[in-house]
Amino acid sequence: MAVQAAEVNGRIEMMRGEMKKRGITMYIVPTSDFHESEYVGDYFKARSYLTGFTGSAGTAVITLTQAGLWTDGRYFIQAKQQLKGSEVVLYRMGEEGVPTVEEFVRQNLAQGGCLGFDGRVVNGRSGETYEEIVSGKQGTIAAKEDLAGIIWKERPPFPKHPAFLLGEEYAGEDTESKLKRVREKMKEHKADVHILTSLYDIAWLLNIRGGDIAHVPVVMSFAAVTMEESFWFVHHEVLDDEILRYCAKHRIIIKDYEDIYAYAGSIPGGKKVLLDKRIVNYRICRSLKAEVIAKRNPTELMKAVKNETEIRNIRNAHVKDGVAFTKFLYWLKTHIGKEEITEMSASDYLETCRRNQALFADLSFDTISAYGANAAMMHYASTPETNATLKPEGFLLVDSGGHYLDGSTDITRTISLGSLTREQKELFTAVCRSNLNLAAARFLHGCRGTNLDILAREPLWSLGLDYRCGTGHGIGYFLNVHEGPNAFRWRRPAEEDGDCVLEEGMITTDEPGVYLEGSYGIRTENEILCRKAEKNEYGQFMEFEIITYAPIDLDAILPQEMTARERGRLNEYHKMVYEKLSPYLNAEERDWLRQNTREI
Amino acid sequence: MAVQAAEVNGRIEMMRGEMKKRGITMYIVPTSDFHESEYVGDYFKARSYLTGFTGSAGTAVITLTQAGLWTDGRYFIQAKQQLKGSEVVLYRMGEEGVPTVEEFVRQNLAQGGCLGFDGRVVNGRSGETYEEIVSGKQGTIAAKEDLAGIIWKERPPFPKHPAFLLGEEYAGEDTESKLKRVREKMKEHKADVHILTSLYDIAWLLNIRGGDIAHVPVVMSFAAVTMEESFWFVHHEVLDDEILRYCAKHRIIIKDYEDIYAYAGSIPGGKKVLLDKRIVNYRICRSLKAEVIAKRNPTELMKAVKNETEIRNIRNAHVKDGVAFTKFLYWLKTHIGKEEITEMSASDYLETCRRNQALFADLSFDTISAYGANAAMMHYASTPETNATLKPEGFLLVDSGGHYLDGSTDITRTISLGSLTREQKELFTAVCRSNLNLAAARFLHGCRGTNLDILAREPLWSLGLDYRCGTGHGIGYFLNVHEGPNAFRWRRPAEEDGDCVLEEGMITTDEPGVYLEGSYGIRTENEILCRKAEKNEYGQFMEFEIITYAPIDLDAILPQEMTARERGRLNEYHKMVYEKLSPYLNAEERDWLRQNTREI
Repeated sequence: MAVQAAEVNGRIEMMRGEMKKRGITMYIVPTSDFHESEYVGDYFKARSYLTGFTGSAGTAVITLTQAGLWTDGRYFIQAKQQLKGSEVVLYRMGEEGVPTVEEFVRQNLAQGGCLGFDGRVVNGRSGETYEEIVSGKQGTIAAKEDLAGIIWKERPPFPKHPAFLLGEEYAGEDTESKLKRVREKMKEHKADVHILTSLYDIAWLLNIRGGDIAHVPVVMSFAAVTMEESFWFVHHEVLDDEILRYCAKHRIIIKDYEDIYAYAGSIPGGKKVLLDKRIVNYRICRSLKAEVIAKRNPTELMKAVKNETEIRNIRNAHVKDGVAFTKFLYWLKTHIGKEEITEMSASDYLETCRRNQALFADLSFDTISAYGANAAMMHYASTPETNATLKPEGFLLVDSGGHYLDGSTDITRTISLGSLTREQKELFTAVCRSNLNLAAARFLHGCRGTNLDILAREPLWSLGLDYRCGTGHGIGYFLNVHEGPNAFRWRRPAEEDGDCVLEEGMITTDEPGVYLEGSYGIRTENEILCRKAEKNEYGQFMEFEIITYAPIDLDAILPQEMTARERGRLNEYHKMVYEKLSPYLNAEERDWLRQNTREI
Repeated sequence: MAVQAAEVNGRIEMMRGEMKKRGITMYIVPTSDFHESEYVGDYFKARSYLTGFTGSAGTAVITLTQAGLWTDGRYFIQAKQQLKGSEVVLYRMGEEGVPTVEEFVRQNLAQGGCLGFDGRVVNGRSGETYEEIVSGKQGTIAAKEDLAGIIWKERPPFPKHPAFLLGEEYAGEDTESKLKRVREKMKEHKADVHILTSLYDIAWLLNIRGGDIAHVPVVMSFAAVTMEESFWFVHHEVLDDEILRYCAKHRIIIKDYEDIYAYAGSIPGGKKVLLDKRIVNYRICRSLKAEVIAKRNPTELMKAVKNETEIRNIRNAHVKDGVAFTKFLYWLKTHIGKEEITEMSASDYLETCRRNQALFADLSFDTISAYGANAAMMHYASTPETNATLKPEGFLLVDSGGHYLDGSTDITRTISLGSLTREQKELFTAVCRSNLNLAAARFLHGCRGTNLDILAREPLWSLGLDYRCGTGHGIGYFLNVHEGPNAFRWRRPAEEDGDCVLEEGMITTDEPGVYLEGSYGIRTENEILCRKAEKNEYGQFMEFEIITYAPIDLDAILPQEMTARERGRLNEYHKMVYEKLSPYLNAEERDWLRQNTREI
């Protein structure tokens, strides 16, 4: 639902009223819940409420005279549209000369000023940075109140969906074993307590799932692990008897969700607490008297390396997802131009295809179904106002995925609906080369995503084009579709954590694209599983297995723009797709798939 | 000259005698002069004297019962041969399970032990690490004596070659301007004094050259820069009147070489000294009372980014060097099998070709002329004992370069002397693809060598092969042939310094290879200049210009193993080589070059 610019300006004025009452001169509203979750429940969408920008990532900063919104390259086009007419200024993160939020605060907070934010939605690391900036200006921090919450009259309720257990046939490792591995890491770091607030890590560690964030099956909760016991801070009403028995069996002590702050404060000063300051919120960090060992959560790497059961399940989930996607493709290709199809009706059809698959639980994120120029917005979400009718020409970009009990998927295909320009075909072919060249990499163990990214980027860079985002991200198992620490990107992140060594069992997306503002967008996305290849005198070689199965539209491919080696890669991939999917298709769909996975 | 194993064992026993007299339980002899130079003058070759291993890189550690030598992948084969029969154990750096020198010290220094080394040949950073290890063991450090010097009876004299000025027509920027830029950086870092001990950086900053290291035209000296004046710590006897006048003009105060330690000690405690602890020796660091700002030398990046005069000169030096190399190639290809040619006579002929070129000053390093299996040793140096006679078959690998007043060169060609096996041609072709694929990269500004390295590595990795070193290094201007901070490598170095953003004006070698122990070696090396390409909405694109001109042996190329795009790259390169060199060749050479740069 689009928010009027005037309404946005009114909300910002109300914020300023609350700020003035408290002597706050600058207030920060990031996009976060109390757990540094990437996507947040509606209850936490204060930044969106304040600015009208609905993208999944962004930070608002309000001063008594200015209002700014920071977001990244995925959202520049969308944010520009949604901020239009309001007083909110768009700060394009990563662009030359654009200050970061921190730089803005440093430059604009007055001497002796008061910087406000809700200490629960700012992580410990950022809080420390703000403390440092403020102390340089003899200012103060006001972090105890949620001002946006005060002015937000019709705020949705706090999410409290039922939690449920994920059986070992799906998780592949029991909580006992996971806790044991975590405690080994704690010993390594000489930690007495480990505080975990990442909802994904808690879900993985306890083998529980919930529904507290749309399309992210997590349970709003905190956890703490000591050498003897574990604590789970969670709203009692989301637990049933089965979970209570499970917790008792695994010596997991249930405490109230809000008790985490008191618990943190109760850890004696002489103890050592392992926590990730980039995730644990500022209020928890400020509550601690104990010494902090600031490290990433050991569970982060553990859950990124999928176990054998998970990998077997995920491959299976991808076959089902590929069947659903291929049925959708067949329908779309044979119905386009014959009946009215819109972005939203197309994505509804695709959703139905997925829902028909065994063990389907949910979409893994809101489907991006973007026609023509809409696809130039990387993370476009069709709304009734923008919902385009598909014509038998140009590209429809569909980025979608499913959560199944046996794994989550994330796939993008750009589909030719009819006539294409030469340029569209050239760029589609370049993106296909990018995608398959990265997937074909063979590399020595020790390589990181930053070493490999250029294999995807090069076919586009050589044309003077780029996509303003990473090439790929890790993906959770029936959890958040974006997961670290594995990724493909070329810019080295500030910390090694975001660019880990690629290990056997990690699954990463491979999704290069081209986005031409006002014209069209192309993206081809597969998931690729990192595996060991040969080990010899030079070391352990690694390779990828593509585990996403769906045809790449040959109607948009210019074979002569590919080398023989590259054509071979596409043919080999299409052969696999046909073999995996054809047993589950009807005769018409199978014939269609055979034709659309033919050798070129 | 090969040292007998028995002789090596005797020297180590003498070291142990000196160690025992002083209560030293472990003694470290790195490969270094007092300036952390990569190559060292004969006076400083204590490690080589002690162990018999003559490679350019390595560290010896002697305990009362053990003796070890650490070296890197370039030298594994050579070190294994040269250590044979002695008690010295080879530690292959970077291999799985092999401790680093520091780890070895940590594991083997006894509780309360005494760790010895000459504080002038160990840098400040390493010294601090040793201090930390020793303090954990309640031990002591003995860093005031050079024990190897004590037992080394016929030590060569300390190098004191005449210094000379490098005119501005070669340097492209005067000392005044360079000092000004350095002082700006000092201001940025709030430093009062900058101590510089890198011989390359001093030579660059003062526009002086000398001859104190073979093939590295530097002057043994230290420097210090304050906001008002500069100090040059140098042996007076290497200076002539012209230099003295030059120094007076630029307010550079001459002090004695040994005075650096007293000078460092005399800087008041309240001052701040900018220095690079990875380079400045431990004795200087220990002499300081002032606060240290540990940063890389500002001159490091400045000298890596070549100015316009330097670039113009360097391109010219490469044409001359290419002419010399092509004359050599013509001679070799037309004489092989008709007269006796050895590795050494071939490299002598090449040296003569270079000496005939204008402004030639010296070889830029000892020529590697390696036939057959000898070429599997990356940094093989032919000696009268190993000097192979060339047969009209297989490969001769020649890695060589010249110092000219207008620039230094570093080029490797692997030359087919007659019949080759299919495998040899396949691997030669793969190396050629590696080389040219990297040089063809187009990338966004911000990329580092680690982002690009895989472009060279991938054709070999896909065959399960690797070269155990970086793909390329920066190169000095009439200075050290190896220069940072630019490089191509895939492993991320511990610090950003070794993997800087590639800037316009940086010149880096591109030298992938294949080394099959006992069989043969292949390397193709060009230098590539980083330049700006188009700038558009996506950012500043960058590209490389190949500035090395010499044919890549078509007799060893299998065109069908290259894609059309790759063949196009080779053809385009060869076309340029012919255009650049043909005006300077005689008719026979020109015809030969035309034939050997033909389109494939």
